[in-house]
Amino acid sequence: MKDCIFCNIVAGEIPAEKVYENDTVLAFLSIGPINPGHTLVIPKAHSHSALAMQQEDFALLMKHVHTIACAVRDATEADGVNLTFNCDAAAGQEVFHTHAHIIPRHEDDGRVHWPAGEYDAPRSHTIAEKMRAQLRQ
Amino acid sequence: MKDCIFCNIVAGEIPAEKVYENDTVLAFLSIGPINPGHTLVIPKAHSHSALAMQQEDFALLMKHVHTIACAVRDATEADGVNLTFNCDAAAGQEVFHTHAHIIPRHEDDGRVHWPAGEYDAPRSHTIAEKMRAQLRQ
Repeated sequence: MKDCIFCNIVAGEIPAEKVYENDTVLAFLSIGPINPGHTLVIPKAHSHSALAMQQEDFALLMKHVHTIACAVRDATEADGVNLTFNCDAAAGQEVFHTHAHIIPRHEDDGRVHWPAGEYDAPRSHTIAEKMRAQLRQ
Repeated sequence: MKDCIFCNIVAGEIPAEKVYENDTVLAFLSIGPINPGHTLVIPKAHSHSALAMQQEDFALLMKHVHTIACAVRDATEADGVNLTFNCDAAAGQEVFHTHAHIIPRHEDDGRVHWPAGEYDAPRSHTIAEKMRAQLRQ
């Protein structure tokens, strides 16, 4: 897509520090790393977000994400890794071409996770029932 | 695994608000939701974390995660979704049985994303070269 920065990286029109590339997938370092080694993995074919992908294409992408995440962990000698898709702007997505974030983590690196909330049983039951209805369709 | 809380949920020995279940996968509401409708998807077979799974098993899990994430989004009328694996304690993993977090997000729900850093080109090149070496192995 002409105005998509990640499509332009795929096309070689914008430079990136590439980590891995094959026919369907490209991995490169984030230019705004949460921690050093923060890597993005994208499908070469344009899609808006992970949830907009066809399920089979998403599963194939995830095989590569798995391999690359292990390499990121080992290369950065990380103690852990976050593997994240932010789907849509409300979830923090900034570039609207599907990308997995692979974030190397280290003990005491200071990243604070979002706090857990709670709800009463009737409310959780109501929400779950709506999901089950969606999944039965 | 006897002392694993998620294995105990799979075995029906600990209750959970289940959203979806088949032979290999179970989805249920988090009891500590970041937002209402926060759902966990687990493989029934025990593994420590996503990166410890076999790649094929992980890809199969992700097909289900994709379907369930769409249902979570629609059932909660969310504006977006975060899809996350925290792999190992340093990355915020608290239960050591692989689980995907599906977190419904809403405009202005107040969740603050980790800030982007930066690095100079020589450093990013050195890190990427280590990853490329891992992936060539």
